Amino acid sequence: MIKPIKWSNGKVRMLDQSKLPLKVSYIICSDYLKVAEGIKKLWIRGAPAIGIAAAMGVALGAQKIKTKGFDEFYKALQPIFSAILSTRPTAVNIEWAINRLKKLLLSNNNLGVEKLKTLLIKEANKILKEDIETNRAIGKWGAKFIKDGDTIITHCNAGSLATGGYGTATAPMRVAVEQGKKIQVIADETRPVLQGARLTAWELMKDRIPVTLITDNTAGALMKRGEIDLAIVGTDRTARNGDVANKIGTYSLAILCKEHGIPFYVAAPTSSIDFSIPSGEFIPIEERGADEVTHISGCRIAPREVKVKNIAFDVTPAKYITAIITEKGVFKPKDLYKIQKLKIKN
Amino acid sequence: MIKPIKWSNGKVRMLDQSKLPLKVSYIICSDYLKVAEGIKKLWIRGAPAIGIAAAMGVALGAQKIKTKGFDEFYKALQPIFSAILSTRPTAVNIEWAINRLKKLLLSNNNLGVEKLKTLLIKEANKILKEDIETNRAIGKWGAKFIKDGDTIITHCNAGSLATGGYGTATAPMRVAVEQGKKIQVIADETRPVLQGARLTAWELMKDRIPVTLITDNTAGALMKRGEIDLAIVGTDRTARNGDVANKIGTYSLAILCKEHGIPFYVAAPTSSIDFSIPSGEFIPIEERGADEVTHISGCRIAPREVKVKNIAFDVTPAKYITAIITEKGVFKPKDLYKIQKLKIKN
Repeated sequence: MIKPIKWSNGKVRMLDQSKLPLKVSYIICSDYLKVAEGIKKLWIRGAPAIGIAAAMGVALGAQKIKTKGFDEFYKALQPIFSAILSTRPTAVNIEWAINRLKKLLLSNNNLGVEKLKTLLIKEANKILKEDIETNRAIGKWGAKFIKDGDTIITHCNAGSLATGGYGTATAPMRVAVEQGKKIQVIADETRPVLQGARLTAWELMKDRIPVTLITDNTAGALMKRGEIDLAIVGTDRTARNGDVANKIGTYSLAILCKEHGIPFYVAAPTSSIDFSIPSGEFIPIEERGADEVTHISGCRIAPREVKVKNIAFDVTPAKYITAIITEKGVFKPKDLYKIQKLKIKN
Repeated sequence: MIKPIKWSNGKVRMLDQSKLPLKVSYIICSDYLKVAEGIKKLWIRGAPAIGIAAAMGVALGAQKIKTKGFDEFYKALQPIFSAILSTRPTAVNIEWAINRLKKLLLSNNNLGVEKLKTLLIKEANKILKEDIETNRAIGKWGAKFIKDGDTIITHCNAGSLATGGYGTATAPMRVAVEQGKKIQVIADETRPVLQGARLTAWELMKDRIPVTLITDNTAGALMKRGEIDLAIVGTDRTARNGDVANKIGTYSLAILCKEHGIPFYVAAPTSSIDFSIPSGEFIPIEERGADEVTHISGCRIAPREVKVKNIAFDVTPAKYITAIITEKGVFKPKDLYKIQKLKIKN
């Protein structure tokens, strides 16, 4: 299985996804700023994966701190938290991972700094391990919606590469295949960054899951021909009411599904659900530079000085979503709040 | 005004649109096969423009025919008709132009071959001239739907470059600007061939009409934000019942418009209406090679040997279309058949 990120000999090793599928190369980060750069420049991307990267980045940064008392140590961590938090605004997983580490530290403030440093490494690795387990659970819940012979459309990459491994949106597909179901995947290429063409197609081909690549414009025509049975996508942040922020174009795909009576599922680890946000309107939406639209692989494809609007994410309102598949079970968007209660119980 | 094609010194000169916006270069065709190649390879594209190219290609091919009687001349033209007809199946304008030349020839079968050759050149130039007049008329009718301050989304390129000049979908925008209305245009980049990014953005910038380029995935998000007032697109072939074949992604755009209550207009010269076809199901839909999806500007962006489905056009059913703007007036799709009666009257 592809491992987009791991802790390796005191450093963070990440697959440089910006080079895929042409080149499989790894970047070794020995500094938290390099990890932050990797998140910002999309060497690593995908909500769960950047949550893991955030945790590993903090753990990495912590190792270099030369203070003794807890308070000084915790204070010295603040610029590291800030640098990593400021990389990308839409995915909640960075916040989630950092909050988890903060809580861990605060509840262990009696330990010495060296022990805390080791604790951070362990916790980052635990987040990675749990992520893979979470995805397998999502896969089991989600595979129930996939029938033998189904064709599933997905947008962007919510696959192994977007996570610690196994993927979120791809998990139900992987489980369906393990169950012996014959499936086909349609991968939207997902402009502007082409995660579908570069990443989803690549990882599914590697795992011998049949995949066909289309331009984002083609989804509607295939639905009209009756060639798509269901859609499964990932999410960068899901609000308490079930509104889902995900890669730009997800909203359009959901509307197309509604218009054609095709079920539209969101695979969402609970780490990507932000219960503090009542609805999608409150999710910060990242806008990125024009060059992602005007250039592809360094080649200019649009006129010089053209005005560009490059919104990286959109919000799909809960009403378009058939169900949200989490590791704790499948929920109607309106019932998502119940997970919070489940969490308290656990 | 940009002239994508013209008859020049006994040859056909076409702007090589496949090189835009990086390079403005012209191809001089001295042979009808070169014209056919140009249509196939998208040096010239857009339904009205390839209708003009078809006529000029036939006129060019005719000049080299060395026969004397009408029957032999007409027979010698058959392989030229076939070569040009086989270039691209979806746009009806190639058929329309060739049928027009055939009729002209058959009704002048008393003339000598040299006169017929001259007649063909004249007719091809007449088709070009009429096309520009048609587009100006479309502009006048269509501008009524554009209010001061409106933002108009368009897909692909149905601009000057797609026609003899002035454009079809862009004509109402141009007239609105001439009327002193302040407008904004949103250009879908239009994957895979990027006619929006490469051509629409370029020609509108050239003519100082404010244009913003977006990925096709972004249209839905802008509509949800209330930033789009209306859509105007072109057509490659419109069926008798008002179903519209146009560049892939048009169908999705129409569904997005419906979902957001945004009017969706089609600018259609009557030459692109195929009254012989009862509905969109009967319109032949071109599929093109995988390389348009897997490569951009010669750079590979998808894994080797990935399976691709590259459908070049889709059909937007009449029910999604607010109105069809022709040079003869504005029609509800269901009333389109009335044009046929108008034509008989004229």
